[in-house]
Amino acid sequence: MRVLLNPLDGMNLLSQTEVSKLQKSSNSPLYALFKSCALAVLNVGNESDELYNEYSDFEINLLSRERGIKIELINPPQAAFVDGEIITGIQEHLQSVIRDILFNSSKYETTDFNDSVEVTNAIFDILRHANVILPTDLPNLVVCWGGHSIKEKEYRYTKEIGYQLGLRGLNICTGCGPGAMKGPMKGAALGHAKQRIKNGRYLGLTEPSIIAAEAPNPIVNELVILPDIEKRLEAFVRVAHAIIIFPGGAGTAEELLYLLGIMLNPKNKLQVLPIVLTGPAESIAYFEEIAEFVEATLGKEARDLLNIMPDKPAAVAQFIKDQMVNVRDFRKSVGDAYQYNWTLNIEPDFQHSFDPNHENMSQLNLNLDQPKTRLAANLRKAFSGIVAGNIKEQGVLAVKEKGPFILQGDETLMHRMDKLLMAFVEQGRMKLPGSKYEPCYKINIL
Amino acid sequence: MRVLLNPLDGMNLLSQTEVSKLQKSSNSPLYALFKSCALAVLNVGNESDELYNEYSDFEINLLSRERGIKIELINPPQAAFVDGEIITGIQEHLQSVIRDILFNSSKYETTDFNDSVEVTNAIFDILRHANVILPTDLPNLVVCWGGHSIKEKEYRYTKEIGYQLGLRGLNICTGCGPGAMKGPMKGAALGHAKQRIKNGRYLGLTEPSIIAAEAPNPIVNELVILPDIEKRLEAFVRVAHAIIIFPGGAGTAEELLYLLGIMLNPKNKLQVLPIVLTGPAESIAYFEEIAEFVEATLGKEARDLLNIMPDKPAAVAQFIKDQMVNVRDFRKSVGDAYQYNWTLNIEPDFQHSFDPNHENMSQLNLNLDQPKTRLAANLRKAFSGIVAGNIKEQGVLAVKEKGPFILQGDETLMHRMDKLLMAFVEQGRMKLPGSKYEPCYKINIL
Amino acid sequence: MRVLLNPLDGMNLLSQTEVSKLQKSSNSPLYALFKSCALAVLNVGNESDELYNEYSDFEINLLSRERGIKIELINPPQAAFVDGEIITGIQEHLQSVIRDILFNSSKYETTDFNDSVEVTNAIFDILRHANVILPTDLPNLVVCWGGHSIKEKEYRYTKEIGYQLGLRGLNICTGCGPGAMKGPMKGAALGHAKQRIKNGRYLGLTEPSIIAAEAPNPIVNELVILPDIEKRLEAFVRVAHAIIIFPGGAGTAEELLYLLGIMLNPKNKLQVLPIVLTGPAESIAYFEEIAEFVEATLGKEARDLLNIMPDKPAAVAQFIKDQMVNVRDFRKSVGDAYQYNWTLNIEPDFQHSFDPNHENMSQLNLNLDQPKTRLAANLRKAFSGIVAGNIKEQGVLAVKEKGPFILQGDETLMHRMDKLLMAFVEQGRMKLPGSKYEPCYKINIL
Amino acid sequence: MRVLLNPLDGMNLLSQTEVSKLQKSSNSPLYALFKSCALAVLNVGNESDELYNEYSDFEINLLSRERGIKIELINPPQAAFVDGEIITGIQEHLQSVIRDILFNSSKYETTDFNDSVEVTNAIFDILRHANVILPTDLPNLVVCWGGHSIKEKEYRYTKEIGYQLGLRGLNICTGCGPGAMKGPMKGAALGHAKQRIKNGRYLGLTEPSIIAAEAPNPIVNELVILPDIEKRLEAFVRVAHAIIIFPGGAGTAEELLYLLGIMLNPKNKLQVLPIVLTGPAESIAYFEEIAEFVEATLGKEARDLLNIMPDKPAAVAQFIKDQMVNVRDFRKSVGDAYQYNWTLNIEPDFQHSFDPNHENMSQLNLNLDQPKTRLAANLRKAFSGIVAGNIKEQGVLAVKEKGPFILQGDETLMHRMDKLLMAFVEQGRMKLPGSKYEPCYKINIL
Repeated sequence: MRVLLNPLDGMNLLSQTEVSKLQKSSNSPLYALFKSCALAVLNVGNESDELYNEYSDFEINLLSRERGIKIELINPPQAAFVDGEIITGIQEHLQSVIRDILFNSSKYETTDFNDSVEVTNAIFDILRHANVILPTDLPNLVVCWGGHSIKEKEYRYTKEIGYQLGLRGLNICTGCGPGAMKGPMKGAALGHAKQRIKNGRYLGLTEPSIIAAEAPNPIVNELVILPDIEKRLEAFVRVAHAIIIFPGGAGTAEELLYLLGIMLNPKNKLQVLPIVLTGPAESIAYFEEIAEFVEATLGKEARDLLNIMPDKPAAVAQFIKDQMVNVRDFRKSVGDAYQYNWTLNIEPDFQHSFDPNHENMSQLNLNLDQPKTRLAANLRKAFSGIVAGNIKEQGVLAVKEKGPFILQGDETLMHRMDKLLMAFVEQGRMKLPGSKYEPCYKINIL
Repeated sequence: MRVLLNPLDGMNLLSQTEVSKLQKSSNSPLYALFKSCALAVLNVGNESDELYNEYSDFEINLLSRERGIKIELINPPQAAFVDGEIITGIQEHLQSVIRDILFNSSKYETTDFNDSVEVTNAIFDILRHANVILPTDLPNLVVCWGGHSIKEKEYRYTKEIGYQLGLRGLNICTGCGPGAMKGPMKGAALGHAKQRIKNGRYLGLTEPSIIAAEAPNPIVNELVILPDIEKRLEAFVRVAHAIIIFPGGAGTAEELLYLLGIMLNPKNKLQVLPIVLTGPAESIAYFEEIAEFVEATLGKEARDLLNIMPDKPAAVAQFIKDQMVNVRDFRKSVGDAYQYNWTLNIEPDFQHSFDPNHENMSQLNLNLDQPKTRLAANLRKAFSGIVAGNIKEQGVLAVKEKGPFILQGDETLMHRMDKLLMAFVEQGRMKLPGSKYEPCYKINIL
Repeated sequence: MRVLLNPLDGMNLLSQTEVSKLQKSSNSPLYALFKSCALAVLNVGNESDELYNEYSDFEINLLSRERGIKIELINPPQAAFVDGEIITGIQEHLQSVIRDILFNSSKYETTDFNDSVEVTNAIFDILRHANVILPTDLPNLVVCWGGHSIKEKEYRYTKEIGYQLGLRGLNICTGCGPGAMKGPMKGAALGHAKQRIKNGRYLGLTEPSIIAAEAPNPIVNELVILPDIEKRLEAFVRVAHAIIIFPGGAGTAEELLYLLGIMLNPKNKLQVLPIVLTGPAESIAYFEEIAEFVEATLGKEARDLLNIMPDKPAAVAQFIKDQMVNVRDFRKSVGDAYQYNWTLNIEPDFQHSFDPNHENMSQLNLNLDQPKTRLAANLRKAFSGIVAGNIKEQGVLAVKEKGPFILQGDETLMHRMDKLLMAFVEQGRMKLPGSKYEPCYKINIL
Repeated sequence: MRVLLNPLDGMNLLSQTEVSKLQKSSNSPLYALFKSCALAVLNVGNESDELYNEYSDFEINLLSRERGIKIELINPPQAAFVDGEIITGIQEHLQSVIRDILFNSSKYETTDFNDSVEVTNAIFDILRHANVILPTDLPNLVVCWGGHSIKEKEYRYTKEIGYQLGLRGLNICTGCGPGAMKGPMKGAALGHAKQRIKNGRYLGLTEPSIIAAEAPNPIVNELVILPDIEKRLEAFVRVAHAIIIFPGGAGTAEELLYLLGIMLNPKNKLQVLPIVLTGPAESIAYFEEIAEFVEATLGKEARDLLNIMPDKPAAVAQFIKDQMVNVRDFRKSVGDAYQYNWTLNIEPDFQHSFDPNHENMSQLNLNLDQPKTRLAANLRKAFSGIVAGNIKEQGVLAVKEKGPFILQGDETLMHRMDKLLMAFVEQGRMKLPGSKYEPCYKINIL
């Protein structure tokens, strides 16, 4: 099957050099990246670990035509089509893939910058190029984190939260994918419709190594592909005006630890960035477990940064809406942009790529006797590695080959981690439904 | 509680004469009508038979201001508000109420026209004034009929149908209200979002005597209030490019009989207007019952007009999408407008207001030995009366006072009707959930 | 030659009754009116008194088609076309003609209302139906009056004034036609372009009896046809936020006297409506003449209402821009609409149609010993008659048949009028350039 | 005087790195460039050679604010303001200056590429970044070249041509500045207004070294600053769908020779790019002179590429409109983009920067015995140097210091050049009106 897509508005002409960069070629890493991201966005709604095997005869090519570039698809997944026509939202995602892969590769030969300022500028540059920095908007972007594999009741709850946010004119940003990343957008879309908000934003921030596992739902109407998880996390916190954390697994824990590590930095003491943990009544125990872990490891100061508000969708939305005024006042007071939090201080430790291989994992300093922000950074890396071992291609392969990652540290901390991770496993938060979870890590007490 | 609404775009300045017409006044029937319709649209989501008692201290006033008319609400239902702000979609409905009540009353002193052409022109005039006639659009408007009180599975099915229609760029028109009138719109909104269709249409056609029981959901983004059920039914069939009938009760039966009565008219033999009956797998028996009733009373020709396609959302949507080409071709071939079917022949019998009082109901000719179109017209009136006795204010009061309506006719037909109505009752289709149904009719065999 | 026009956006479907009203028919006065107005807007740029003779084989018909009404033109003037395609602005004017003729004729059987309130409501209704009442705009509409036959220097000056107004975001309303009615629009269009104002308004208010002589220039992007000169004058002063009067002839004098008659009414004492008389340096003498006439006839109070500011385009525009705040404050203070001055008091004497026949003209009370507003009303009628005798079809025919109109009154006033009119004649302001003026009036001293 | 400008739509947030690049600094060449370009666009309508002396206390700064960047102006020229508010079109130009200077400097450290493909890609990249590549538009962009110092009659003629082009929906691209670069835009704006074309394009392509002498008129609604004259000329011919050449001086000759040099290239034999030379009746002699020079130097083939159509505005516009179909067909046939002519072959000789210093000028090979395309390239450089000596800052200084440039070559060619240049001088085409021309060149016969 062969499909030829006419370019949609918003897809500019490409230069001849750019087209040639994305030309099919067996040994071009850029083409491989392009193809796998393209396949991921086409395969929406069909969560599967075997994506690349299933569509081994898939191909994508760019063809120059008089009105711009046509996209040729060979044997694409059928889920992207209705009566033979591609779903427009999915084609937009394809175009975002082209846009970001070309931009990131042509502007930045490497994204492993030495300089912290360079990282922050590059992320800004990528977001701006994707047209997601809208300078005239007031603060209204709510980042929602949470598991891609959550229970039906939890999922409905995320929709209800989204609905209440949407009714209040707030916009949603998530990491794409199913579960807690899709529910808030779906709910917000309904709230926006009732309020006749036609330009509601459903911003998805993703990265090449996870896009296959967390394909953006077509509701996502702004999609950006950041180079790696560290840039993606920084993008989240710099565009966020508030953050809601739903129940989730290792990925959600990674996000929470990253966030706490930054907010605990004394330089960020005055920052206004409301953090709410919420879920249905059933999830109260879950949040208590998280809160306990945070307090035990990062201290009461960290615990106090979290507003735990279970089972109160309207109250959560109202709280966040109210906080937008404080966010605005703070940004004004320091002369910072509404749409990109330049003044938030992020230490290099949180910016540099962490390669979750066996050696790096086993050498993480997981002891309580270190500064809290340093500990948060290390814990973040530990959970990041677990996510990789669970669902990122390279990580999965490494674990298959060499066995589980070893995490080692002092007894108290190791017990805490073990307990938390076991809870995730028991609650089915580590993998997509239907599969039995085989831990990719092993905990050692030093 | 007192709220003052700034006029939204689309609400033009009113003349001083117009404002004075809608001024609060104890003995103005126009103000009473205005107030009750306004209350109905404000009370969305809160289905209740006791609306007017609950909000006995509600008032609405228009105030002239330098940028147009402000709407003052005294003690409005809280469901219309989020954190003290009215939901925009609901305010739009309020403005539609003002628009249509003023227009209908000032342009047409009476709408009980003698002349058939006048009726058709007046309906066109009302729809055009409400900006719902969009001459440049191709045929794409799917009228969905069905019960306001349906089962959860049926409701989800109507959403799925709407989703599949929306993915195909089709728009939805219903009679407003909950159940089968809301589901298709909600589904279509999601389909439109994925296709990035920003001007999706969710057209609600209602009438003053039923708006309280079937308050328009805020998703309805075009609302028109026709003077009575006959004008409303004519509006449905003249704007429809296809009609889907979901499971429902007496109202749905009225609509189906009205439609068949018209389509059986030999003058409409060449008309292209696809009719699909659909529902979840569970509803197969229901549709068989309907089909049997139709065939037994109006004949095989009538039965053959119905495409019964249970449990096939994508196939239904694809069928209707395909039919749009035929609708277009037919309209072109006769030089008729895409957006208003002028050439559809509607006999005066279907146009004149039927007053469902006890006398008129008992005198309906409900015998099989009459022309099929005449029989359809009479059956339509019988079901219309039952709807009135069930949920329209005047009908409910009449039944309370004088007992059930008497329907009388020949044995075969009466048995058929009895069987069908009993099925509706058993399936809980006659009233809102939670209440026990007390029949408003009695069947007599002559 | 036969041309078929596809309907433009903004031309709604017409009902079958409406189409039949405008059907070609030898004895339908409505068709005759329609045809002559249509011919006038098509004949733009080609000022000629012989319009109807030149295009005696012109015809216009409406044809129903599936996407609305097509307009068929037989032998239309070529000036309306570029390479065989009608100029879009001209087609919009055609559509305005259809819209207003249908609306005025179907909503108001007669427009000679007894009641003053009815007149004011009807004018509002016509303007609103033409979508020229924009409630959300702040005061910014400058009515420009002046001759259709002015000198090149005066014309350039009107363009410069328009440019300065446009640079300040102000919009223009004139009586259509050439000269001082076109210049300000052309200038404002350039000013708007430099300010990137895409929705600049060039509103033309006309009437059937003069549209042939003052065909709207295609820059006019909102055209309304009022029933007669009295309704048109009332429309001008109710939509105006300021009025600029350029040099002109009898028509301009009529407008000025109408305006002064209203502003002298004690009930309008608090009204804020800036009036500026301006022109190039050469026109100083002209304005002094006008001022002298006004002071001598209507008194110093009237004279003081006029701001005479020759040769100062930027200062005039700045003055008017500054005054907009006062207009806004006044409207707010009395709760009146920004876009239609409801509180301006206009006496019936200024509202009723004056039929300028020989008898009516000779019986006008043109004596100084009457109240000033009454005198202004009578002087207005006298000049209105002269305009009719000069260029309106009926007036021209009457004068041809029965000789000049007789105007009679006391000596002082008659001398004043004679002097003013002679000045108009000498300055070539009474007729289009190139023709010799034959006075249509005679002045008698009683 | 200090003015603070709020960012307009279309001005995105800048990164902190970018803002710091444009920070005021006495020794930053980028700031100097930025300031001089900014001053040029602010000084519109005030053509003067003494710009930088007059505004020696002018400063421009960028300030980061919560809704993006504010632009601070110290002592700006008053011509850019109306009642203290900057003209929006001029602010857009300022923002274009910021956009292009940042983009050109950050993406391309040098623009003196070795590789021809790189040049063509970089120009595309700059134009695309400025949003002037609109892939969905059909061919409709008419490049107009001609003198900035032309006679009143010629100027009016350029307006008339623009008007006729605008009536036909064609868009205009010029080199900015007054005279033949402004007239067509002004005319087209009127034509577009009559056709209700709201997105008419008035594209100005300029370069830092000439922007002061040819400040973009505020009608220009898309402004791009290319790095140098060679990139600018290439941009012209790659975006053009047709080229009109009005009377002009050395700059116009440069443009014509550049164009002919490219079109004579055998690889461009099949290219469809209509070239029209036109002007009022008075300019017939002028065009004959040009044609004669072209034929005598570049041969009959070159002469035949020129369509000389004096005094026929409507015919010219109609001819060009008709040619658009051929342009479209050609682009389609070779699979080339409508909006950027990739297949046009431009030899490196036409792409590399020519530095018009005394040595380079005197060493130009100006002899007839060389290939025509080579000769055209050299003649182009000769005229380019004369333009520099006339109005570009560096050239003017060099001539002031070292005396006129020496041009030397064989007798026939030198006589031809002398004759042509003398004609330009006599016709006042070499300098702005009011000044006496002092030749910046001397012709030597070898």
